[in-house]
Amino acid sequence: MTQTLASEVENVNAMARPAPLSIGGYLIKRLLDYGVGHVFGIPGDYVLSFYGMLESSPLRVVNCTREDCAGFAADAYARVHGLGVVCVTYCVGGLSVCNSVAGAYAEKSPVIVISGAPGISERVNNPLLHHKVRDFRTQLEVFEKICAVAVDLNDPVDAFRDIDRALDTAVRFKRPVYIELPRDMVHVVPHVTHTYHRWEHATDPQALNEAVEETLAWLARTEKPIIIAGVEIHRFGWQEKLLALAEHLQIPIAATMLGKSVIRETHPLYIGLYEGAMGRPEVTQFVEESDCVLLLGAFMTDLNLGIYTANLDPGKCIYATSEQLRIRHHHYRGVVLGDFLDELLKRQPPPRPRPIPDGLRPRAEREPFELKPDARITLRRLIERLDRQLDDDTIVIADIGDSLFAATELVTHERTEFISPAYYTSMGFAVPACVGALAARPDARVVALCGDGAFQMTGMELSTAVRYGLSPIVIVLDNGGYGTERVLHPGQWQFNDIRRWDYARIPEVLGGGRGYRVETEGDFERALLSAWEDRSQFSLLHVLLDPNDYSPTLTRLAERLSKRI
Amino acid sequence: MTQTLASEVENVNAMARPAPLSIGGYLIKRLLDYGVGHVFGIPGDYVLSFYGMLESSPLRVVNCTREDCAGFAADAYARVHGLGVVCVTYCVGGLSVCNSVAGAYAEKSPVIVISGAPGISERVNNPLLHHKVRDFRTQLEVFEKICAVAVDLNDPVDAFRDIDRALDTAVRFKRPVYIELPRDMVHVVPHVTHTYHRWEHATDPQALNEAVEETLAWLARTEKPIIIAGVEIHRFGWQEKLLALAEHLQIPIAATMLGKSVIRETHPLYIGLYEGAMGRPEVTQFVEESDCVLLLGAFMTDLNLGIYTANLDPGKCIYATSEQLRIRHHHYRGVVLGDFLDELLKRQPPPRPRPIPDGLRPRAEREPFELKPDARITLRRLIERLDRQLDDDTIVIADIGDSLFAATELVTHERTEFISPAYYTSMGFAVPACVGALAARPDARVVALCGDGAFQMTGMELSTAVRYGLSPIVIVLDNGGYGTERVLHPGQWQFNDIRRWDYARIPEVLGGGRGYRVETEGDFERALLSAWEDRSQFSLLHVLLDPNDYSPTLTRLAERLSKRI
Repeated sequence: MTQTLASEVENVNAMARPAPLSIGGYLIKRLLDYGVGHVFGIPGDYVLSFYGMLESSPLRVVNCTREDCAGFAADAYARVHGLGVVCVTYCVGGLSVCNSVAGAYAEKSPVIVISGAPGISERVNNPLLHHKVRDFRTQLEVFEKICAVAVDLNDPVDAFRDIDRALDTAVRFKRPVYIELPRDMVHVVPHVTHTYHRWEHATDPQALNEAVEETLAWLARTEKPIIIAGVEIHRFGWQEKLLALAEHLQIPIAATMLGKSVIRETHPLYIGLYEGAMGRPEVTQFVEESDCVLLLGAFMTDLNLGIYTANLDPGKCIYATSEQLRIRHHHYRGVVLGDFLDELLKRQPPPRPRPIPDGLRPRAEREPFELKPDARITLRRLIERLDRQLDDDTIVIADIGDSLFAATELVTHERTEFISPAYYTSMGFAVPACVGALAARPDARVVALCGDGAFQMTGMELSTAVRYGLSPIVIVLDNGGYGTERVLHPGQWQFNDIRRWDYARIPEVLGGGRGYRVETEGDFERALLSAWEDRSQFSLLHVLLDPNDYSPTLTRLAERLSKRI
Repeated sequence: MTQTLASEVENVNAMARPAPLSIGGYLIKRLLDYGVGHVFGIPGDYVLSFYGMLESSPLRVVNCTREDCAGFAADAYARVHGLGVVCVTYCVGGLSVCNSVAGAYAEKSPVIVISGAPGISERVNNPLLHHKVRDFRTQLEVFEKICAVAVDLNDPVDAFRDIDRALDTAVRFKRPVYIELPRDMVHVVPHVTHTYHRWEHATDPQALNEAVEETLAWLARTEKPIIIAGVEIHRFGWQEKLLALAEHLQIPIAATMLGKSVIRETHPLYIGLYEGAMGRPEVTQFVEESDCVLLLGAFMTDLNLGIYTANLDPGKCIYATSEQLRIRHHHYRGVVLGDFLDELLKRQPPPRPRPIPDGLRPRAEREPFELKPDARITLRRLIERLDRQLDDDTIVIADIGDSLFAATELVTHERTEFISPAYYTSMGFAVPACVGALAARPDARVVALCGDGAFQMTGMELSTAVRYGLSPIVIVLDNGGYGTERVLHPGQWQFNDIRRWDYARIPEVLGGGRGYRVETEGDFERALLSAWEDRSQFSLLHVLLDPNDYSPTLTRLAERLSKRI
């Protein structure tokens, strides 16, 4: 049976009625206030009562096959939609989403984790209730380590305020938060009147003024400025501000790997990804010879910097994120990046145009794709062909390893989104992320690139695509093992090999979807066109690669690493 | 390609050579000292160097498809073999085993968690290395919450001692421990001489004497004594002690659900599982009318006590575990349960025979199984038929939900083992546990009972069975959803339904194993006999049940819970 993910609104009026709300009811109301439409998860006995409330609310429950998949789906939903929710039972559910939630923390994706828990009234004399690990605080203490805040709704007087605090923190800092809901508190109606006060985070106007003046004075002296745009620009919705500033100043823009698609890659000012020795050498050179680097919303991670092969002199950088603003070696406190961008543009500084050499921009170097139908498919040719298929409504999701490295060579369009856990790099993200992305954007064409090792971790989550009638296109890049590890740790190690599955037959198990086996360029052409037309079901393209076939990006990285040894 | 799991010994001599050992080498040596033969896990770049060392050692690396599955496999291996090991990479691997490890903690299964980590030399100025969540302590701090001890091998002087401390703690307390191994410490050879000193945990002889005298004096006054045996008797290897004492005293024995198979269920003194209102009423009555209950190595958990429907008066109980000895309401400290059992028998007290009524012992009530080939298969009939198939070399693994409740009705034989996470109750345990159990006991017949919801979480781990030529029999009990939750939270909730897979076709995806579709008693008979004969591959029996078909145990629990409301 196929269910629909469309939000239903018949219950909205019931929710909006100004009757006194229970703790569970208030939590649902606040999620709706933030525009959340879907909750991902798996029920369990300590959260069944709240699940009943969820299913009766305007929120749509999306049942996944595993909790960690629900966590990845909620993370992808948050990246596309602005806020995601995963709801699970105590410990067996909660501790199964640790890795997904840690990834959301590391990459600033605002995911609300709601966990059921034993009732407060059941805890007298610390009994051994099932699912308990050490004591009733254990799960909360674990999530304190991997969330921005963790609250326990164990007190009717504090519960509403704690819900507000948790949700506001997620939205403000774009980090996951944890809300523990004991099962006997779900229907409790507090006897206190609660009014929601939004906590505003304001910029210090004097610090802002000084920082802007210093920046503009420096820009006026520069000859080769460059902007490096990072993922926070997307998370906080500052794309328009950034683009307006760059277009006014006429400064070229590079993006980090994690920030790929922050601006459309066909923009005339866009020059490509900056990723040190992993990236295209001409981009690396153009960035590193700059006399003023505006790093905006970027994480300075090892992978974003090509495993620290990037060569950026802090003395030439303005490094602005949601958490700090650093100009060369001094810091400004209390300057919100969005306000910084606004103020820079408002002052209408003179443009600092920097010409972009021929052949630097990614689109310029492309030649027409000439299909060689009988040629064995290679990763490079697959990416080149796929690149020509992307349109404005595509969301590309890349899993980890060479799926990611290869996918960085795709050119995203006007409204294309590129999603990948490119810093935390947890394998198995892509397929569950398709579910989350399609719940958020049902009309989008979602294409996932996924290694075989990653697919074996979470690929059966395609079951959820069948259940809800979603039609992602999943491209399984099968090289029979953990390809990136073969490059990083050469040798004939059995542990880098995995069993080869007949992935194209998975639709037969799931009772839905269509599988394609791809060995040649002609196979890929036919499968891709067929899959692109098919909006009725998921498509799985099983691409059999030579185990020694690596993307140019991974090849460059390997060459660089081997030089280090 | 199928690999073998048999331990190879050609490298043992190299390991035994008294050359100075590196930190990684010492860790491997100590695992071998404890008789460990297999390490379960998935490699990743921060642990690749240690994986290379593992693959070159006498230890066999068992590659699973997912880290949490490797954790479950290591847990099952520990339950069968005495000590289990899971080895993963930093955060994306480690945080993926949190739930498996928490389950091992809750149920006292000694699992060693080894996690790679960024090198100490890479951590200068706290860089954003991939896989990092908050800081370099985050993962260690998480595992401190769910392990008996967590050590970080970041100092050559302390490393060997820390390894000893972690392993001794796991063996002594039967709890998981965490060892973090930075990648640049793997090959470091400390400049200090290290000698291993085993830490002995000794009983206080005077406390022991007083407790034994009090116990024997009480026993001499009793008329209706009973022993309830728990899982610790198995974990600590005290089965023979317990049985010798029970046979000498002629006291009947019940077991807890978690302790099922602690003694063979065909033993003349065995009366069945004691589980409050969930259990057979005649067993419950026989236990609860006792005037002296010897609770030995049992966890007093909610499920062991039939969701607290058990009715045991502490004033009539002697409660002895590895952690405490309580007689009525007073406590003795420092009395090891194994020594307590030894000393009780050594005093040769007079027997306190208590007659067991006809029909109480589980085997006695059985009638011959008459096959009705065309009848739709029911859970009750399936269990009755399977019960007659079990032999001395069977290991039964039950997943959670009605798989567990139904499986409690099986009768285990001389050397049958029954494995289930019956307290922590994490779904998805059974299939990965088959891999762990068969690595530990390659000659055993391993049969898993698994609900469809649980199978969808981890069932594809059968891939690992194909890879290593293992032949478990997995019975998927398909009722199209989370059956136990339908009982606990009645109503037409969509969240309790799951998509029905065509499980019997999974062998076609994995390229190994054989699937059977079972709808009638005849189908089950044929499939079971065929599977039992087949030692060349896994067998998957897809049993299509009526969604309203529950085991007698779950039915009794539901009746009892409904009376409470």
